[in-house]
Amino acid sequence: MIGAYGADPNRYQFIPRVLLIITHGEQVLLIRRSPIKRLWPGKYNAPGGHVEKGEDPHAAGVRELAEETGVSVESLILRGLIVAETGLDGSGILVFVYRGVAAHQALRASSEGEPVWVRRAEMAALDLVPDLPQVLALTLDQPDFFYLYKIPHADGSEEVSVRFERS
Amino acid sequence: MIGAYGADPNRYQFIPRVLLIITHGEQVLLIRRSPIKRLWPGKYNAPGGHVEKGEDPHAAGVRELAEETGVSVESLILRGLIVAETGLDGSGILVFVYRGVAAHQALRASSEGEPVWVRRAEMAALDLVPDLPQVLALTLDQPDFFYLYKIPHADGSEEVSVRFERS
Repeated sequence: MIGAYGADPNRYQFIPRVLLIITHGEQVLLIRRSPIKRLWPGKYNAPGGHVEKGEDPHAAGVRELAEETGVSVESLILRGLIVAETGLDGSGILVFVYRGVAAHQALRASSEGEPVWVRRAEMAALDLVPDLPQVLALTLDQPDFFYLYKIPHADGSEEVSVRFERS
Repeated sequence: MIGAYGADPNRYQFIPRVLLIITHGEQVLLIRRSPIKRLWPGKYNAPGGHVEKGEDPHAAGVRELAEETGVSVESLILRGLIVAETGLDGSGILVFVYRGVAAHQALRASSEGEPVWVRRAEMAALDLVPDLPQVLALTLDQPDFFYLYKIPHADGSEEVSVRFERS
């Protein structure tokens, strides 16, 4: 079946996600993932989640941030994209990486995990999700829009490449 | 089956496309779509196409532009996203709208259609794809990153809303 605007569901598709790099002064907003999560239990990651039907990535970012941390933002700016191969035939993952500044410091936990404000100098001591240091640096420490491409290997390692969109 | 990085193919997905708003001086690059195309035969649109497995949207933009028009660009900057409902259960369309400046004026046609340079003042006389004037204005005439959301109605009309990401 072909949908509106010629949409062909047999085409390659992306499972859309958002990742939210939110700061308040010198601190970055992280979540210690619930210990019962399938992927990366107990590790620290930035807030984020899936884009659902009926919303654009920006709206998904505002929603996920409120749900997972109780934080609202003054702005949310798209800073880069992460494309990840998944090993599934027809589906990759596309992560929209947003940079935002929190409107307040107060946090509220959810079933996803415990939100915390962390200074970047203190991060090295935490059990972080593997790509978080690189994504933080790409989002916070350089001005160009970035593309991060990840291909997982069978041994658990991954091939990572980065490109920049010069403006 | 769950893929790498926890990818769940039962999640809502996007069929990813690119749309390329390319200028050369005062002119905009359009393609008169082949008369045998299923969607919008014979109408004028900006170049574009699907993002394929193994490429990010920026790479897809460079490839589609070369294939459809023979044009190479000095830069390609992401300026907005179009989210379109399709009526399909699990798949929307996500269009990455890029702004670029052509490195040269020479064009080369393909089976997709005939590429042409058109001055904006001359566009009103052409049979354009319905949303092209709005997308051109959003991309070329205002500075903010935009989100265009489209829901098609059964009678062929559509509901369109726009939001801006203030930087």
